Amino acid sequence: MKHILRSQQFDRPALEKLFSATDELSALYETPAGKRDIRKLCEGKLLFAVFYEPSTRTRFSFCSAAQHLGMMTLQTENAKEFSSAIKGETLEDSINALCQYDPDIIVLRHHETGGADRAAAVVDRFDHNVSIINAGDGKGQHPTQALLDLYTIKRELGRIDDITVTVTGDLANGRTVKSLVYLLAKFKGVKFVFLSPENLKMEEGIIGHLREHEVPFREARNLEDALTDTDVAYWTRIQTERGSSNTTLDLTLGVPQMKFMKEGSIVLHPLPRVNEIAKEVDGDKRAAYFRQVRNGMLIRMSLLRELCG
Amino acid sequence: MKHILRSQQFDRPALEKLFSATDELSALYETPAGKRDIRKLCEGKLLFAVFYEPSTRTRFSFCSAAQHLGMMTLQTENAKEFSSAIKGETLEDSINALCQYDPDIIVLRHHETGGADRAAAVVDRFDHNVSIINAGDGKGQHPTQALLDLYTIKRELGRIDDITVTVTGDLANGRTVKSLVYLLAKFKGVKFVFLSPENLKMEEGIIGHLREHEVPFREARNLEDALTDTDVAYWTRIQTERGSSNTTLDLTLGVPQMKFMKEGSIVLHPLPRVNEIAKEVDGDKRAAYFRQVRNGMLIRMSLLRELCG
Amino acid sequence: MKHILRSQQFDRPALEKLFSATDELSALYETPAGKRDIRKLCEGKLLFAVFYEPSTRTRFSFCSAAQHLGMMTLQTENAKEFSSAIKGETLEDSINALCQYDPDIIVLRHHETGGADRAAAVVDRFDHNVSIINAGDGKGQHPTQALLDLYTIKRELGRIDDITVTVTGDLANGRTVKSLVYLLAKFKGVKFVFLSPENLKMEEGIIGHLREHEVPFREARNLEDALTDTDVAYWTRIQTERGSSNTTLDLTLGVPQMKFMKEGSIVLHPLPRVNEIAKEVDGDKRAAYFRQVRNGMLIRMSLLRELCG
Repeated sequence: MKHILRSQQFDRPALEKLFSATDELSALYETPAGKRDIRKLCEGKLLFAVFYEPSTRTRFSFCSAAQHLGMMTLQTENAKEFSSAIKGETLEDSINALCQYDPDIIVLRHHETGGADRAAAVVDRFDHNVSIINAGDGKGQHPTQALLDLYTIKRELGRIDDITVTVTGDLANGRTVKSLVYLLAKFKGVKFVFLSPENLKMEEGIIGHLREHEVPFREARNLEDALTDTDVAYWTRIQTERGSSNTTLDLTLGVPQMKFMKEGSIVLHPLPRVNEIAKEVDGDKRAAYFRQVRNGMLIRMSLLRELCG
Repeated sequence: MKHILRSQQFDRPALEKLFSATDELSALYETPAGKRDIRKLCEGKLLFAVFYEPSTRTRFSFCSAAQHLGMMTLQTENAKEFSSAIKGETLEDSINALCQYDPDIIVLRHHETGGADRAAAVVDRFDHNVSIINAGDGKGQHPTQALLDLYTIKRELGRIDDITVTVTGDLANGRTVKSLVYLLAKFKGVKFVFLSPENLKMEEGIIGHLREHEVPFREARNLEDALTDTDVAYWTRIQTERGSSNTTLDLTLGVPQMKFMKEGSIVLHPLPRVNEIAKEVDGDKRAAYFRQVRNGMLIRMSLLRELCG
Repeated sequence: MKHILRSQQFDRPALEKLFSATDELSALYETPAGKRDIRKLCEGKLLFAVFYEPSTRTRFSFCSAAQHLGMMTLQTENAKEFSSAIKGETLEDSINALCQYDPDIIVLRHHETGGADRAAAVVDRFDHNVSIINAGDGKGQHPTQALLDLYTIKRELGRIDDITVTVTGDLANGRTVKSLVYLLAKFKGVKFVFLSPENLKMEEGIIGHLREHEVPFREARNLEDALTDTDVAYWTRIQTERGSSNTTLDLTLGVPQMKFMKEGSIVLHPLPRVNEIAKEVDGDKRAAYFRQVRNGMLIRMSLLRELCG
């Protein structure tokens, strides 16, 4: 594995290997002595966070992971507006130039689908010893988000097989949701329950994929139907900044709705949330979305460590 | 002391302890061997500078202090515009998410009064092992600025008791000036002299506070009257970007005006200045405003070290 | 040498000393053990990258160089818009304040010609132990770019004397081109060939300088004439963002045009390029413009090391 470009790179054995490596690293990291030792793992390695679009949370997640491993970091938060891009330089030239400075890893967020693939192609063509990590490419992929979602399920429930996963919100436009459904479909006995406004239903491509692989799914009638008996409630935001709207269905998860959920189940959310999960839910031990953020940093630590060799 | 949110947290013994710790750290820092040793004091600790409004000077002051102590730093300069805030995420959620990455300290500059309090509340509610430092919250507080002002007086004059302090400029809107007056009022024998345009006079709240605590103050008739016999001339800028204006009173401190000031007195200014202090004054040994900037870094080093344990 | 402000600071012996030091450092840097050792050379030293205008490439070049040497870095990408500058603070005050935080080096990019000189003057006036490096001051200088261009010629051809250098593109406005021509004129047996649109010809000042120093130059009739027998083809972009335009002359360097160039010659470009060099040329071993980017980092490492003592 040289680059991390899409979640499909990871088959089931690769996922299990990654999660088990992350468990080990995480156990070490949680002790003071281990935390100190971990800072030697990637000492002297250099990470560039090249963000053509700002995303403070994702940038801090990768760069914290890098710093906890002892790496050095250099960052740009708004390369689209500020860099040579406005003078007409191609992404390929920008990446090729940055590779001359010997980063070990370039974490790239780009506004165009396929941006990370183009970056990886130029790295390989010029034989640079640099790994590209796709941290979101337009409407394309954001593979480390899908990995952290899956890792959180594994860590919280102890298994990924034989679970029921409810997914709500903007199913038509959510990059996160699609990647998660594709990855989960590789496991055994996973059942999906969808709940979304009429105008934001899961797209046909994914529905077809589930049918083809004989993965059971159904649409829920309402919140009670969606939450009863589920193991994972994956909540998402209506992405109004991309033109989505929801006027027909109240998808707010509050304390009353949490009563539908069984003991030992979990609530996930890729964040940021607006008000689709009431903040009163945060105190419920089943609310796992902030632990999910932490798992994101841990998965990234594990990936960075593997890429640094 | 877990968080640093407002200058009122510091009573007189706490201030004296802080200043004396800063003196010691500073003496060490000024030697090459000591400077090297200091880089071990907070080794492996992580500071996030989360600035919803840009302030290059304050950010560099905190981050230089952190780096001289061996800390790692991650920064964002314009979180208000760039982060999930524009998608409707609350400050509480942003801080709670950032805490998952295990910073030891979050230095927060926020555009709303009370921002730092809200950040500290969420840290405490979720029991994170993170300290919040308020680096300015709207029209609220900027406690490390007040601490560095006071420390500079202590260091330059050798005492804070029994001094006369002249304060000029925009007394109505200056956050800095108010904090300074409140803190100085805790010392013995401090007398205030105010000089400001009619429309920018010190607000009634502070005047009332001084009366209540029987702290002597008076308004000066002119620059000569304001400067003669004073120990500290605290000069400030008219904050035109907040709508303040001064058309009635020339408050320029130039070489001629410096003649009114006695030997051993000092001129302070929170900077940036525009032209209210002529640059010819910079060469006068009583011009202490750049040493004040340096003291800011030293005080912050001292605070970071204490918070890191 | 305390500051690096303009390319004229470097006479021929200084250039040769710098290039030879860079060769040595570079040889060390290319081995794993040497790369590790180099991280001790400037350990604990602090570099501020203060960019009033964004330039991701230049900032990453300096900061990568610094980090490979073990330095700490603090950066601002858009100081013009974000800092106290908008409140009316002078560059001198900003620099004087930043110097209080004890950087060893300030890399300054400023939008006004003379900005770096003003910064160096205030550093010297207040006797700060800080070096200013000019990373571009408006239409003024960008000395490390000229140094890296020359170093690349030296490294690629093995000599700087007795070469023919073709320069094309926007010769009227290119800061890079002028500095390069001035520096090359110090060497023996250098001949220039210019090719540019009628409206973007080399300015009279430089032409006069070449005549005065009896440096041979001529204008080429066309691309074939410009490239045949040349050793260095220095290609530049038409800077349309500064109002330059080229409607009369096709200056595209493609695979067919490369056939005019002799074996062992090289193509340079300060980058970013738009389409004045076809990307198909990148695979030609004479295409040296990405190696030139790498040499930029190496020259800066060498300069930083010397300035840090």
